[in-house]
Formats: sequence, structure tokens, C-alpha cells
Amino acid sequence: MEKVNIQRLADELNLSIATVSRALRDSYQIRPETRKKVWDLAKKLNYQPNPFASGLREQKSKNIAVIFPELANNFFSLAINGIEEIARQKGYQVLIYLTHESAENETGFVNSLANGRVDGLLISLSSETGNYDHIRELNKRLPVILFDRVCESADMLNVTTDDYDSSYKATIHLIEKGCKRIMYLLALKNLSAGKLRLKGYTDAIIHSNLPANENLIIDCDKDEKENYTLIKEAVAAQQPDGILSSIEKLGIVCYHVARDLQLSVPKHLKIVSFSNLETASLLNPSLTTITQPAFDIGKEAANILFQLLDKKKVIPESKIITSMLIERDSTS
Amino acid sequence: MEKVNIQRLADELNLSIATVSRALRDSYQIRPETRKKVWDLAKKLNYQPNPFASGLREQKSKNIAVIFPELANNFFSLAINGIEEIARQKGYQVLIYLTHESAENETGFVNSLANGRVDGLLISLSSETGNYDHIRELNKRLPVILFDRVCESADMLNVTTDDYDSSYKATIHLIEKGCKRIMYLLALKNLSAGKLRLKGYTDAIIHSNLPANENLIIDCDKDEKENYTLIKEAVAAQQPDGILSSIEKLGIVCYHVARDLQLSVPKHLKIVSFSNLETASLLNPSLTTITQPAFDIGKEAANILFQLLDKKKVIPESKIITSMLIERDSTS
Repeated sequence: MEKVNIQRLADELNLSIATVSRALRDSYQIRPETRKKVWDLAKKLNYQPNPFASGLREQKSKNIAVIFPELANNFFSLAINGIEEIARQKGYQVLIYLTHESAENETGFVNSLANGRVDGLLISLSSETGNYDHIRELNKRLPVILFDRVCESADMLNVTTDDYDSSYKATIHLIEKGCKRIMYLLALKNLSAGKLRLKGYTDAIIHSNLPANENLIIDCDKDEKENYTLIKEAVAAQQPDGILSSIEKLGIVCYHVARDLQLSVPKHLKIVSFSNLETASLLNPSLTTITQPAFDIGKEAANILFQLLDKKKVIPESKIITSMLIERDSTS
Repeated sequence: MEKVNIQRLADELNLSIATVSRALRDSYQIRPETRKKVWDLAKKLNYQPNPFASGLREQKSKNIAVIFPELANNFFSLAINGIEEIARQKGYQVLIYLTHESAENETGFVNSLANGRVDGLLISLSSETGNYDHIRELNKRLPVILFDRVCESADMLNVTTDDYDSSYKATIHLIEKGCKRIMYLLALKNLSAGKLRLKGYTDAIIHSNLPANENLIIDCDKDEKENYTLIKEAVAAQQPDGILSSIEKLGIVCYHVARDLQLSVPKHLKIVSFSNLETASLLNPSLTTITQPAFDIGKEAANILFQLLDKKKVIPESKIITSMLIERDSTS
């Protein structure tokens, strides 16, 4: 197939390349009839602008990037749907990059965006990320908004949820249901969200005059199989009567552990998990969740990014959107 | 921050731009010591090649694209993990495009890849897609491999699973468990996978000498809320004793419908669903699934793509990887 480029359009219409190029950019310098002729032929021949060349010329890629840590996670699925809704309205394409929780992948992706492939970045940090230099460096060149998993320092725009309050409330909920030995499954410990969730739990324990017990805090920054063994051994040894899981996938592991240790939920063990699991209400028993406003977090983060890209005369501000504790049978 | 480009590297090293450019491409024309000097400075200053310019020059983007229909779907999460595993080994970056089941989005993305942004494409078609011209057109310019949701005609390379056999086996399983009125939830009806799954069901019904009843085939190509109402009304009217759901999300809807109609699963109603749901074994009752080899489908599709990109002297062939029927309590 012969390549359809501006040259070919110019040849077929007997126009100069400059005229065709301007017509394709809807320049006022070109008469409407000529513009229409050019567009009609471009459509007919399925002309596609060369993304490299037009990127160089226009200095706008009309792409935004989303970098996030994992795919098999309902929070991110929903957040990205929120981002895409806004991007679509703005006529932007979304390029998606998956870090698989690796700080090295993340730094590589962020650095690769420095030269104009995208106009802005929305990023949720990997659980390994402890240093934010790569983000700050990119942010000198283009707008970067963090969502959910953000830097601790407040020098960058971000959209988060009320991690401390949610965790505090969930712990109090377990205490009100009679729990006295509440195990906390720790994850994301390098990140602000992970630290706030842990603090919410420990403060609720202290404020309720329960003994603070470090053996009940289980560090679960391992792979799936190791986490299962770790949690099973901890539950067998510590005999908690309640568990607060700080991320969705550990909540699912708790169900397997309870089943394999023949612990009845909620009778022997009550479970609450941070989760956007679609099947939470269908589990046996249904799972009490801290449900995060994932779709809205994505949407808000994209809104702030486009405020910056559109150079709107508003000063964009970081946002906190509240999560919801949904009580179900696992804590009844 | 001053922009780090080839000019700047050339200035600092007192070399010509051409020399720096060749050194960065590891050209044999440049002495090793000079190459090392250039690379050391490039690293120190975190030099990033301009993707537009270098794309034009090298004619290789080192990117592949994956286009797929939906994010909140465990099949695609796993398949993409399989694709990424291979891409990472090959030093390629994966650009991800989501069609949200829209043929228009899909055509737009496919057309936008025609001009060198990526070296190859892996695609799973949207449920709306009925015409494959856009795929064939792109395939004239770069390798395209379809996975799971493929074109019906056999002129393009693809990786699929045994949709007909899986559906046939699942229907026979329900019949063996005593079902006589088996409802089929139809989806993906434009696509090969959808047609094969339907045929597997109808053939199993006929071969088992059960009456073929069109009222038991429910066309569920609607949105989530409409599907719920549709299935609830159909179950209430037709009183099936078994349901075969041809996609995961309709299987979940069945649980809600059974609960709301106060039908006990599996006593009143047995359920099997095509599904890669992580929580299938934890549902109340646990769900019998046709589990697809999602990760391997992604991996195989990527392997075939890289056979083409690496110009290996093998003739790549389409592949079929078998699914598994996993019996659980929803059909016991």
C-alpha cells in the first residue's frame, strides 16, 4: 500500500505541501472550500498524521500518561475509568503504564516521559518507591498529579482519600463488635497511605485503652504465597479475634486462612478490609469493607491535570475524598 | 532546568552533534573511548532521547501496543501480565489502550498506530466489532496478533482457547447434575468466541436429547443494570434449573438474581460461568467456573509477535490453549 502522507495529498489536489498542512490544521489562512477539499481527501485515503512529526511541530501530544502499580486491583480499574471519562471529554488519549510495584520500572517510565511523548502525568506510586526525585524532576517539565499513593511531602498536587480516619473508624467498629485482639495487616509501609492507615489503627487501639501489641502488626510486603503462610502462622500463634487488612488482596488471603484453620468468620474471627471488591457482598460470609471512592479519585485527579493543561485561571488544589465503611456479615 | 539534548552533550564534550548522535547509537564509526565519554555524560545529566526524533531516525519504537476491551476483568489483567512478562524480557515497553467495548474507539486506536508509534500490536476485539478492515489495514504495515476475542476468518494470527469444547463440557456437566432446563446467558455474539460458546451449549442440549428452547437463550449485550433486570425477569418467567453464563460479569449477576428471587444455589438453581474470578472459591456458594488460561494466552500471543519482530526463521502459527472446568459448590 502506498503511504498516505501530506505529499501525496498535495499531489492529488495539485496544492502545495504548506497549503495542505495548514488546511489540516484548519488554518484561517486557507479558504474554507480548500480546507474541505483537503479534509475530504484525507478522510477518503485514511490519512494519519505522523505522530513524531506532528508532535515536534505542535508541541502538544494530546496524550496523557497514567502510571500505576497493579492491574488485578479493583481500585485502579475504577480510578482509570474515572480518568478516561475526563480524558475522553477533552479529546485526549490515555497511555497506560504498569509498574508491577517496582520502583525501578516506575523511574524508567517517568524518565521516558520527559521529552514530549505526553502532556501530563497521573501517577499512583509503587509500594517500593521511597524517593521522589524522578517525579519532581519530571514535574519541572510537565504537570504531574499524584493519586491515592502519593509522596509524603506536600509539595505536589494530589488526590487522596481519608486513610487515617477510615482505618481509625474500622478499628473502632471491630472494638464495638467485641474484638479485643485486633490484628493489623500492614502493607504500603513506604507510602503515605500505608503510614496513615497504620496510625489510624494504633491510635484507635490506644484511645480505646486496649493494650498495644506489636506482635499483632504483621508486615505483609511479600509475594502472595509468602503472605498466606505469614498470615496463617500469625493467626495461629496470636489468636486474634479481629483483623483489619490494609489492602484488598490481603483481605482475600484472610478468608483462605480462616477456612484452612477452621476458624468461623465472624464467630471466631471478624474481618474488615480496605477493598473495592465487586464480589464483597457475595462472599461467604459477605465482607465488611472500607470502600474507597476510586472512580471519583481518578476523575478528580484528571480534572486537576486538565485545569493545568487548559491554563485555566484557577489555582488547582489537592483534594481528599472520603471513603465509606460498609458493614457486612464478616463483622456481625 | 536547562534541557539536556544532543547539542548540550556536544557542547560540553567539545564534539560535533553528528559524533554524539553516532556515539549514542553505539556506531562502530566512533572510537570506544569517545563512546564511553558520551555515554557517561548522558547518564550523568539524565539525557533522554527525544522519542519523536529518534523514532523517525531509528524506525524502531521499541514499543508494542495492547488494545483490549475492559479493565475490570480478571481475564485481561492476567493476559496482560503474560504479555508484559515477555515484553520485559525483550526490552520492550507496552502501551495499553482500552476500548471500553467500543468499536469506534478501537478503530481510532488501531488507525493511530499506523505511523510508527509501535512496532507491533496485540489486540482483543471489542464486543461491538463486526468489521475487521481496520485490523487488516494495520497488519499490512506491522505485525498484529489477536488474542481471545479474534476475527472469525482465519487470515490473521491469533491465540485463543477451546471455546466450543468448554461450553459443551459445562453444559454436559449441568445435565449430569440433573439439570433439564438450562438457561444460556449470551454475550459477545458478534465475535467468534461468543458464537462458539453458544454452539457448544446448543449442541450439548441437542446431543443429550433435551428440548432446544429459544426462550432459554438470553441475549445480554446490555449495560450492567439492564442485564440484571433482564436476567431476573427471564429466570422468574422461565424457571431454569441451571444457568451457563458465557462471561464472568454475568455470572456475578446470577448470584444477585438468585438471592433477590430467594432461589437457593445449587438446590433450586445450579450456576456455571466462564470466569477467572479470584474469589470464585470464596463465594456463597463457591462458583463452578470454566477457567481460561489467561496468563498463557497473553504470553503465547506476545511470543508469536516477537517471533515476527525478531524475524526468527520459524513460521509463526495460531494457537489454541485449553480451558479447565473447575467444579465447585454452585453445581453440587
